[in-house]
Amino acid sequence: MNGRSDVSQHTRRLVAEVLERRGYPRQRVRPTRGSMVDVMLQGLDSPYALAILGGVEDAAWRLGVDLIVSAVVGRTKNGQPPPAWLDRIGARDSAGVLLVRTSPTATQRAWLTDHGIPAVIVDPRRKPPPGVSIVAAANRDGAREATEHLIGLGHERIAIMAGRPGVPCAIERLAGYREAMAAAGLAIDPRWEACGNFQRESALEATRELLSADVPTAVFACSDAMAVGVYQALNERGLRVPDDVSVMGFDDSWAAAHVTPALTTVRQPWPDLGSVALGALLSGEAPQRVELPTTLVVRSSTAPR
Amino acid sequence: MNGRSDVSQHTRRLVAEVLERRGYPRQRVRPTRGSMVDVMLQGLDSPYALAILGGVEDAAWRLGVDLIVSAVVGRTKNGQPPPAWLDRIGARDSAGVLLVRTSPTATQRAWLTDHGIPAVIVDPRRKPPPGVSIVAAANRDGAREATEHLIGLGHERIAIMAGRPGVPCAIERLAGYREAMAAAGLAIDPRWEACGNFQRESALEATRELLSADVPTAVFACSDAMAVGVYQALNERGLRVPDDVSVMGFDDSWAAAHVTPALTTVRQPWPDLGSVALGALLSGEAPQRVELPTTLVVRSSTAPR
Repeated sequence: MNGRSDVSQHTRRLVAEVLERRGYPRQRVRPTRGSMVDVMLQGLDSPYALAILGGVEDAAWRLGVDLIVSAVVGRTKNGQPPPAWLDRIGARDSAGVLLVRTSPTATQRAWLTDHGIPAVIVDPRRKPPPGVSIVAAANRDGAREATEHLIGLGHERIAIMAGRPGVPCAIERLAGYREAMAAAGLAIDPRWEACGNFQRESALEATRELLSADVPTAVFACSDAMAVGVYQALNERGLRVPDDVSVMGFDDSWAAAHVTPALTTVRQPWPDLGSVALGALLSGEAPQRVELPTTLVVRSSTAPR
Repeated sequence: MNGRSDVSQHTRRLVAEVLERRGYPRQRVRPTRGSMVDVMLQGLDSPYALAILGGVEDAAWRLGVDLIVSAVVGRTKNGQPPPAWLDRIGARDSAGVLLVRTSPTATQRAWLTDHGIPAVIVDPRRKPPPGVSIVAAANRDGAREATEHLIGLGHERIAIMAGRPGVPCAIERLAGYREAMAAAGLAIDPRWEACGNFQRESALEATRELLSADVPTAVFACSDAMAVGVYQALNERGLRVPDDVSVMGFDDSWAAAHVTPALTTVRQPWPDLGSVALGALLSGEAPQRVELPTTLVVRSSTAPR
């Protein structure tokens, strides 16, 4: 698409390098104590968390590492791992902890450090604590590319439906949008910056409000779910996608290819996030921040102005 | 809906009974050796397998059992667990094996028996081997209820889009459809029995063929994905859902609520399948077959004849 079609190959190389450094054979048949890795997910109902888990699982299988999988969901109110979780990790001498879209509390982070258990956060949903590795999509670059796609089609009045304030990826995507607008000499107008919470309903309401003031020629929704909400709000007003308004998503969810019209969006490298995170966890290296490139997926919801 | 709104409560009771029999406290903080359970999934890309895993995970957390999760996908051609898997299970003294939509080979089954490791298959995709517990949805009852719903709306020319031949749930659903048709005195006509493979494309093609001969007033698709294929084939012919043809699905996938018109379908108790399966695995009881009730979910794709 844009020289980034080698994502998987790049990831394979990253993981292979990690394997080599660790001296792991291609398949260890009898894992020893300490060859287990804990994976904590926000919930098992998010297809994104699960696509990440898929990448972790695939790399773990190749490494001969066993994955102990547990989920936060319903166990704490704040989306952070429940307290009893650390007791269980301590009891089994975990080689490390992968936190998928969830972050340890300060106390949990300190406990992990004290016990010498490394942690990596994949796709953090809040500002991550210091001293922990992060693996995430290149959200700013992806959003910039999405906005450039719309600009390249001749759009100038481009609204953004931003994600939940304070979530790192939402902040990054808004920054990418602004960068692209500024680089093209287009006005960054607060009127065009609507805000949802990544879910469909939030975007439906925010777009209704946006449209009551003025109609943009394109909307960049910072999640596919919100793009569906944008579709609905436009539909209510009798505006057609993409004839009247182009709509762009972010994620490349299952729905993106199945809504009508099929959604132009930004594909996140979900499985790669997982496999690279496992590699980073087992590498024994100092905390680092890894960003993996996204891919623009052009379908039928964007058209020339 | 039909006296079955207590599914979760029923399941909770089942699991609670298992817990009590096993003498498990509500939360064990320090699991001992043998308190790990292996979960083998067909793949992590199926939302159904994952919803089942969610139920397993929830019950495991309450039981203080650790889940070692691995997936078959891409590792064997036949969808059965890869050979090296048993070596790994043996090395860690697994308390049991949950196979989600995958079945052990005869050799693997014998190995598990020899090592005294119990196994439970959840939602089997092929005829299960003897001597292993099965937990599945009440597919026959659910399909009968779906067909009765259509009959209750006055439909008589009801086609079925059956699932992949040989898959246990496909066989059961076809049987349920036939039971309902026969009980209502309606003809069981091979002309109305089309066959797909659970996927959308298969139903699109099979429905095109069906419609080239005659047009039914209702179609019962044995998966939501196939219902979408039925929608598409009807749409190609200018037939409207539900005005011209009622369409019914099976699964209650995410898509069911999001397609237009929203799909009337049969909800499978995915998480309950998982939690009950874990309970059965840890119960130490003789191999059994457990069926959990489905729920009819009426939306907008079915209408009176």
